[in-house]
Amino acid sequence: MVLSGIWKRHENSKDPIPPNLVISHSKEVPPEDVQDICASVGWSRREPVLITKALGNSLAVISAWDDQLIVGFARATGDKVFNATIWDVVVRPSYQRRGIGLLVMHELLKDLDEFQIPLVTLYADPGTDGFYRRFGFMADPSGVRGMFREKI
Amino acid sequence: MVLSGIWKRHENSKDPIPPNLVISHSKEVPPEDVQDICASVGWSRREPVLITKALGNSLAVISAWDDQLIVGFARATGDKVFNATIWDVVVRPSYQRRGIGLLVMHELLKDLDEFQIPLVTLYADPGTDGFYRRFGFMADPSGVRGMFREKI
Repeated sequence: MVLSGIWKRHENSKDPIPPNLVISHSKEVPPEDVQDICASVGWSRREPVLITKALGNSLAVISAWDDQLIVGFARATGDKVFNATIWDVVVRPSYQRRGIGLLVMHELLKDLDEFQIPLVTLYADPGTDGFYRRFGFMADPSGVRGMFREKI
Repeated sequence: MVLSGIWKRHENSKDPIPPNLVISHSKEVPPEDVQDICASVGWSRREPVLITKALGNSLAVISAWDDQLIVGFARATGDKVFNATIWDVVVRPSYQRRGIGLLVMHELLKDLDEFQIPLVTLYADPGTDGFYRRFGFMADPSGVRGMFREKI
């Protein structure tokens, strides 16, 4: 793993990026670890068997590890040709503000660029759009609106 | 094909839905027909081999046919488990305002509901959000913003 390009340490970080941080591009992340990092930010629980299936059906999956602890995660779905959508970008709270989110996004976009996908989309939670703008994402260009249909 | 449920003829339509309209759920739509219907609304040209690959990698593909003429199209990508994204919803201009768009969307959502996908998303062009609201889609709930990174 080379830390370069868009990645840099967060200006307000107290701690440096963990020296032994490992980035994985494998889709075979243990579902219990995905559950764990999602729970760390309060996201609702998903069934392990469904997590495994969803990761297998994703275009790209990135996870960041400090020794055995998962500290960052992101994935993308799509048609592998024309478009991709990024989901589940998450950094464990005790590891936030150290540049791990930037690093995870950078690695994910690198994978998508290898497929030469021209359009990458995502849905940004309130307050996170500045983070994504650093990677060239724009909100609602040309008046296009993200819409959602959710079934609980 | 049964016309029922959410589908109804557009209130301002001059013509009824074509009596011989056929709805296909096959991913194997000839790429030339996809090019043709996309060109009919001014979308940029895509390579046939890439279209075939993208349809194969889609979760669901719906096409509507009046005899040999493709008159409606829509598809969705996703992880088959947690989320899906709808793309390329299009009705041939000379067949618009006859309920074909509603029918195509209805059939596509039916396929996604079979996978029991809880979250379906899309990016609505300006002026089209009213159409999607009829299917329960909401724009930017909880302040979530659709963002895009496009490479020409």
